[in-house]
Amino acid sequence: MNAPVKTEDAFHRLIHENHMYGLWEIASQMTPHPRPEAIPHQWKWSLLSEVAKQSATAVPVGDERRAMQLFNPGLNGQWATTSTLIAAVQVLLPGEVARAHRHSPAAIRFIIQGNGAYTAVEGEKVVMREGDLVLTPSWQWHDHGNETKETVVWMDGLDVPLTKALNCIFFQMHGEEKFAQTKPVNGSKALYGHGHLAPTWVKERPSFSPLMLYSFEQTMDALNGLRSSEGSPYDGISLEYTNPQTGGPVTPTIACRIQMLRKGEKLKARRVTGSSVFHVVRGKGRTMIDGKAFDWEKGDIVALPSWAQHAHENRGGEEAILFSISDRPVLEALSLYREEPSA
Amino acid sequence: MNAPVKTEDAFHRLIHENHMYGLWEIASQMTPHPRPEAIPHQWKWSLLSEVAKQSATAVPVGDERRAMQLFNPGLNGQWATTSTLIAAVQVLLPGEVARAHRHSPAAIRFIIQGNGAYTAVEGEKVVMREGDLVLTPSWQWHDHGNETKETVVWMDGLDVPLTKALNCIFFQMHGEEKFAQTKPVNGSKALYGHGHLAPTWVKERPSFSPLMLYSFEQTMDALNGLRSSEGSPYDGISLEYTNPQTGGPVTPTIACRIQMLRKGEKLKARRVTGSSVFHVVRGKGRTMIDGKAFDWEKGDIVALPSWAQHAHENRGGEEAILFSISDRPVLEALSLYREEPSA
Amino acid sequence: MNAPVKTEDAFHRLIHENHMYGLWEIASQMTPHPRPEAIPHQWKWSLLSEVAKQSATAVPVGDERRAMQLFNPGLNGQWATTSTLIAAVQVLLPGEVARAHRHSPAAIRFIIQGNGAYTAVEGEKVVMREGDLVLTPSWQWHDHGNETKETVVWMDGLDVPLTKALNCIFFQMHGEEKFAQTKPVNGSKALYGHGHLAPTWVKERPSFSPLMLYSFEQTMDALNGLRSSEGSPYDGISLEYTNPQTGGPVTPTIACRIQMLRKGEKLKARRVTGSSVFHVVRGKGRTMIDGKAFDWEKGDIVALPSWAQHAHENRGGEEAILFSISDRPVLEALSLYREEPSA
Amino acid sequence: MNAPVKTEDAFHRLIHENHMYGLWEIASQMTPHPRPEAIPHQWKWSLLSEVAKQSATAVPVGDERRAMQLFNPGLNGQWATTSTLIAAVQVLLPGEVARAHRHSPAAIRFIIQGNGAYTAVEGEKVVMREGDLVLTPSWQWHDHGNETKETVVWMDGLDVPLTKALNCIFFQMHGEEKFAQTKPVNGSKALYGHGHLAPTWVKERPSFSPLMLYSFEQTMDALNGLRSSEGSPYDGISLEYTNPQTGGPVTPTIACRIQMLRKGEKLKARRVTGSSVFHVVRGKGRTMIDGKAFDWEKGDIVALPSWAQHAHENRGGEEAILFSISDRPVLEALSLYREEPSA
Repeated sequence: MNAPVKTEDAFHRLIHENHMYGLWEIASQMTPHPRPEAIPHQWKWSLLSEVAKQSATAVPVGDERRAMQLFNPGLNGQWATTSTLIAAVQVLLPGEVARAHRHSPAAIRFIIQGNGAYTAVEGEKVVMREGDLVLTPSWQWHDHGNETKETVVWMDGLDVPLTKALNCIFFQMHGEEKFAQTKPVNGSKALYGHGHLAPTWVKERPSFSPLMLYSFEQTMDALNGLRSSEGSPYDGISLEYTNPQTGGPVTPTIACRIQMLRKGEKLKARRVTGSSVFHVVRGKGRTMIDGKAFDWEKGDIVALPSWAQHAHENRGGEEAILFSISDRPVLEALSLYREEPSA
Repeated sequence: MNAPVKTEDAFHRLIHENHMYGLWEIASQMTPHPRPEAIPHQWKWSLLSEVAKQSATAVPVGDERRAMQLFNPGLNGQWATTSTLIAAVQVLLPGEVARAHRHSPAAIRFIIQGNGAYTAVEGEKVVMREGDLVLTPSWQWHDHGNETKETVVWMDGLDVPLTKALNCIFFQMHGEEKFAQTKPVNGSKALYGHGHLAPTWVKERPSFSPLMLYSFEQTMDALNGLRSSEGSPYDGISLEYTNPQTGGPVTPTIACRIQMLRKGEKLKARRVTGSSVFHVVRGKGRTMIDGKAFDWEKGDIVALPSWAQHAHENRGGEEAILFSISDRPVLEALSLYREEPSA
Repeated sequence: MNAPVKTEDAFHRLIHENHMYGLWEIASQMTPHPRPEAIPHQWKWSLLSEVAKQSATAVPVGDERRAMQLFNPGLNGQWATTSTLIAAVQVLLPGEVARAHRHSPAAIRFIIQGNGAYTAVEGEKVVMREGDLVLTPSWQWHDHGNETKETVVWMDGLDVPLTKALNCIFFQMHGEEKFAQTKPVNGSKALYGHGHLAPTWVKERPSFSPLMLYSFEQTMDALNGLRSSEGSPYDGISLEYTNPQTGGPVTPTIACRIQMLRKGEKLKARRVTGSSVFHVVRGKGRTMIDGKAFDWEKGDIVALPSWAQHAHENRGGEEAILFSISDRPVLEALSLYREEPSA
Repeated sequence: MNAPVKTEDAFHRLIHENHMYGLWEIASQMTPHPRPEAIPHQWKWSLLSEVAKQSATAVPVGDERRAMQLFNPGLNGQWATTSTLIAAVQVLLPGEVARAHRHSPAAIRFIIQGNGAYTAVEGEKVVMREGDLVLTPSWQWHDHGNETKETVVWMDGLDVPLTKALNCIFFQMHGEEKFAQTKPVNGSKALYGHGHLAPTWVKERPSFSPLMLYSFEQTMDALNGLRSSEGSPYDGISLEYTNPQTGGPVTPTIACRIQMLRKGEKLKARRVTGSSVFHVVRGKGRTMIDGKAFDWEKGDIVALPSWAQHAHENRGGEEAILFSISDRPVLEALSLYREEPSA
């Protein structure tokens, strides 16, 4: 897409024929600041819910899950919501199973609709309720099942564009439809889900959070407890889901956050390196992104590219709650994170 | 105490007079394994409660607190419960204030009796209830107050012998009786006390846990949630209180643990480097230490020296719960931690 | 490039029009193992030296340097030698200056030809000799100058494709041609270039190596000292240039290595995630990459994509020495590094 | 030694009989700043060399080595030069072997006199020359041998008082006089002793430096290269010997430094927590410690307690060089390090 304009004299012909270009031909790609091809984009819940509904009859759940991938309009058909992240809306009907597989891309699920379906991760059945965050970290076997009587809808978040760019994608289908459930139901929540009390007999230190379920009840307790805090001038009461063994992000590549914009709250604008995707859990509001207004309400999903100036505002009659995923752990690990408040 | 036996020929006289000794004169101090001077010792609650009661009238609370220090009988009058830790029982009467000071030794408090008194730490009033763990980390201003109508009793745990051995003790009395309360009551619990959700706007990363209050309610929830786990063969359902920002110990020098011995549970014996002090929160049982039985019940405090063989057993009709402090973070930081199961 | 095939019924029309695709339409992109678009490719020194020679008259050194970028033939005109790295051959004539700028992509230089030119990094003039490695880490001001009478040629290595994929490129031209030289010539070598002796008065801990010059003399001393070691069955006597403050890679995104293949040495094949580019410093040999032979000699540059099976062999009459850059620190930081010996 | 003064009323009798003391009885031990029992003390080379000479005939080398331990006069016969460190002068005659053993205390050797004797560490024979630093980290088998024709004298530095205070001493005598030499002579120097080039095939990451020999030649090269640097106002050109795998101290408990005081250099005074022992490698000078002058020359050894105000001054006609050991890594690991410039 960024192929250089060719300058055709003998020297340039020589180098071009031999797969070389002069820096002077392409230096404009070294931009003063990031200029992502990805654009800010919003998928409204009115659309997403219609798509979710129609998908139930239009496509079967099969080896590849009934997951509608959100393609950033700026990225020319790449499997990507932002340059590093893919978000999707996945639907699982009563009685269905999305069969067991594993992949090097890490995945998270945020439950939008329906209670009681499960994701099984390496032998632990994790029961999912609305507002819960569920992890299926890199290379962990997982399958999903819906043993309830209602349709379940969740948002997937994966780092597929990143792992693709790094040429690190591995994928494996399991021999059985379901991975054997060898651990207690919600067992990692019992082990790791209690405030700052760690089981001393566990020696494993994986590269990701060993806690697979972050329940919405705990999330709301935390937000409510901080309702009267000052919070961040840019993000409001913004909490990061953390790995209990390190205090760091839930996976090495994807960070997850929940943020509360209190009634009437209008936050300041800034830019940060790295991209994110946010989902409206509750409330109504507006996010100004590079000068354009995105008015959102419950269920909407919005892509926020790197270095885009953005400012959130609650414009509803109650608090607004946003869940988001971002590639910030990558930027921080590589010392490429920057932020810049807007004047 | 370990002064070498002097061998008196001319050469030895020469070196001794000049503050030198031959390795051959003292090499027996390089023992095959640790031989602590500290001994296992138990302070029974029947004694401690009587002392607490009498102390109310026998001594005022003053600049130095009404804290009865537990001196290990093996340590010749050193201010030490084990070689690195001091434990004490502190009493605060209704209306009393233990004035503000700070010191480089780190301190923890475990509430034994009474609800509603407070410890104020660097401007945060922390309200204490039975079973709570409260931190006053190194060099943090703190004062205690009892505005309730009942006497409050807690166990102090500090690393005084360690900081003394390292010649690192600093102490400062505050100009005022109370340090100004500039933060919300129990504010660190609101910020850090929720399961694995971290405030993104906080940039401070102190060397200790920023969470000052670990409530007993959360502790019991965690223990109860793991009641049917296998746990550790040596420690049962043993949980470490952790620093939410790192997943590590609450302070760089003192680790805190809570452990549940289920009804009828008899654990295996082992030795570990480093010492600990445990307090019986609930139940009855026996700990065999280097072949000697220590039968304990609610309120007792027991000193466990380094490398002592020890095995716990619940001998009561219900679960037993032990709280403990140890110097394990020190041993681990210096790569001196070892453990050895007993045959 | 990987745009999904569209399945055109009403449901699919609905989702495609709204920038959504079914996972079932694109799941084949989740490959069993990495399938890079980049291909193995070799630029021979016979070509590179001719290009370097012609470039001296064909193009001026200007704001954009006289650097011929090696474009991987599989990457459709992207500014990339592998998916994450760009290598180039840069030429600086006597009397020329490549003016001061800085950029978030990190860069390294490996000197191919000519002694005595300099790279100035944040005020330190670093004098470069053949075989030296010179760093210009992320966002450090740097300019190059040639005050000698001979043409200088070096290989550039940057992480441009990575920082582009992460939308983190920042670039800034300096107001002056040269950044003021405020530090001693080769001063970082004096400070950090001595074996395992660190200046205690320096408090800075940048995210990259503070040592800007790794001299060839030291490199050859190290290789010669290990000539009789077993080394790696896959890489021979392979040494990583390290950050003296951490023992880790020289920058968070690019690792540099030097390896010696002894006379007659034929190494084993393996695959690793992540890509690299190697340059032949000395000797002749062959690298089998995914079944294809690449016969190389002094001066050649070869691109090695992620997960390509590769095995090196010395086929000359003396030792062979290869310098290489790779993105391995990125893979390791994100827990995506894997290696697999070939059967 | 710090046993509290007993206050004898009924309450105090009750608590004292039961191994308890009131905080009010001992609070004076919580001092405003460190008040070590160890005192500054100097052992002159005129004494040490005489002792070394007489020791050759007065005592055999046996299982316990011919090592004269420097006992701090303030520490009442404790095996300690400072509160955490023991230094000693060890003598090995031609043909002698100090038999193989290992212990949890870490040890370093700094060679004072004689070239060509060896320390063997876990199978690596390390040949020692004057000015070399040799490590025998915690729990590594080691023996010493002198196959030359001259007497060898070195300074030992160990963390015995620390490991004793922590009750972590383990000691084991080897079955054979010498541990089998299974590795190349000076092999760790070949592997790790080259400037910032790390062998990629080595996977071990011990808790200590894997480099056993820091040669004086490299040390002097580094000092000479920095002769014209500003250095530290308190320590001059002060370099820390580092672990090449981490950039940190050579062992978790003992740091080693070399410092050059240039001709006429008079440094500023300060206090730091933690103690050290320094040995004069070259030159003459004076160190003011807590107001008392210690005039030193080549060969002298001086103990510097925690928090003592100290300032060094070169008073000879050439540069002065000091080697020192300290417990600073312990203080830093436990967040107890402090420094305070003197007004």
